[in-house]
Amino acid sequence: MAAPIEFFFDFSSPYGFLAANRIDDLAARHGRSVVWRPVLLGAVFKVSGQQPLLEIPLKGDYTKHDLARFARLWGVQIAIPPIFPFSSVAPSRGFYWLEARDQALAVRFAKAAFAAAWQQGRDISKSDVVADIGAALGVAREDFLAGMLEPATKEKLRQEVDAAIKRGVFGSPYIVVDGEGFWGADRLWQVEEWLKRGGW
Amino acid sequence: MAAPIEFFFDFSSPYGFLAANRIDDLAARHGRSVVWRPVLLGAVFKVSGQQPLLEIPLKGDYTKHDLARFARLWGVQIAIPPIFPFSSVAPSRGFYWLEARDQALAVRFAKAAFAAAWQQGRDISKSDVVADIGAALGVAREDFLAGMLEPATKEKLRQEVDAAIKRGVFGSPYIVVDGEGFWGADRLWQVEEWLKRGGW
Repeated sequence: MAAPIEFFFDFSSPYGFLAANRIDDLAARHGRSVVWRPVLLGAVFKVSGQQPLLEIPLKGDYTKHDLARFARLWGVQIAIPPIFPFSSVAPSRGFYWLEARDQALAVRFAKAAFAAAWQQGRDISKSDVVADIGAALGVAREDFLAGMLEPATKEKLRQEVDAAIKRGVFGSPYIVVDGEGFWGADRLWQVEEWLKRGGW
Repeated sequence: MAAPIEFFFDFSSPYGFLAANRIDDLAARHGRSVVWRPVLLGAVFKVSGQQPLLEIPLKGDYTKHDLARFARLWGVQIAIPPIFPFSSVAPSRGFYWLEARDQALAVRFAKAAFAAAWQQGRDISKSDVVADIGAALGVAREDFLAGMLEPATKEKLRQEVDAAIKRGVFGSPYIVVDGEGFWGADRLWQVEEWLKRGGW
């Protein structure tokens, strides 16, 4: 069994959401599994000095147009949430708390949280909303809310973000396959090419 | 005959160079011609507040690795020139002076100037080097050197850069097809998809 693909993303990243719709199927076509890794781009941007995409003059306008066009091409429904940008600390902590208990459930949660933000316009920066998303997947609300606030959960997220920065993750999505990093939903064609050819 | 594709680029942009190797063939496959439009990203970045790609922490390292990998995938030889970043004023002026006289020759010059910088490591920020590139294409050296310094040539480049910024060009390459802008060599697959489907 070949090594899994690592999929780094920020829940507040629309291109991360687009890639989240494709990454599992892409990997499966080449006999690979995917390790989902939520990170906090805010912490990354402190290192790289970048600004949030939609706030950059010229580039921000392009991005709004591009997102809608890109999503249409892939047949994905998308809408920028009423509150944006938003903090992705709560769903990221929720993810890692779940992952320590049930990896597959954590991935289902990640997909549901992405859809809640980017399709249903829900404010996933709120722990209550994250708990609702978990509850719909059978996670006990009170356990989940308490779990997100455990010191071990907070520490786990910090470690994951630090580790990602050390490995060069500077944007979302960022996909690592066989040690090669690819940045951007618009690079999935290169990830697929890499898997198909076994590198080049 | 369908409208031509507009290809905006900066001679100092490595991804512009990569796209320059593909854009004419891509357009021809769909019965389109290409209008080449050199711009100065320095002026664009003043509006958008962006930094040169290779100078951004984390992203700069990624970009160096990505460029080599991307070029290998497309079978294009590429090397970052010894002097980089460099000013692209001279070759851009040279291009527009030539274009006013012979559009096809200007495109051949653009390809030769890109190759000089990104394959032969020559310093195309220097008018002398630009004149050499022109001379190899049969352009009289003294006429070309004088032409680059004509007030009308300088004004033409300023106008083209201003017009590009007004149209939302914020990076290189930036390709406009049927009013739709696509940014990045890694988006040529979407440009091709757009041409194939006639939009989506």
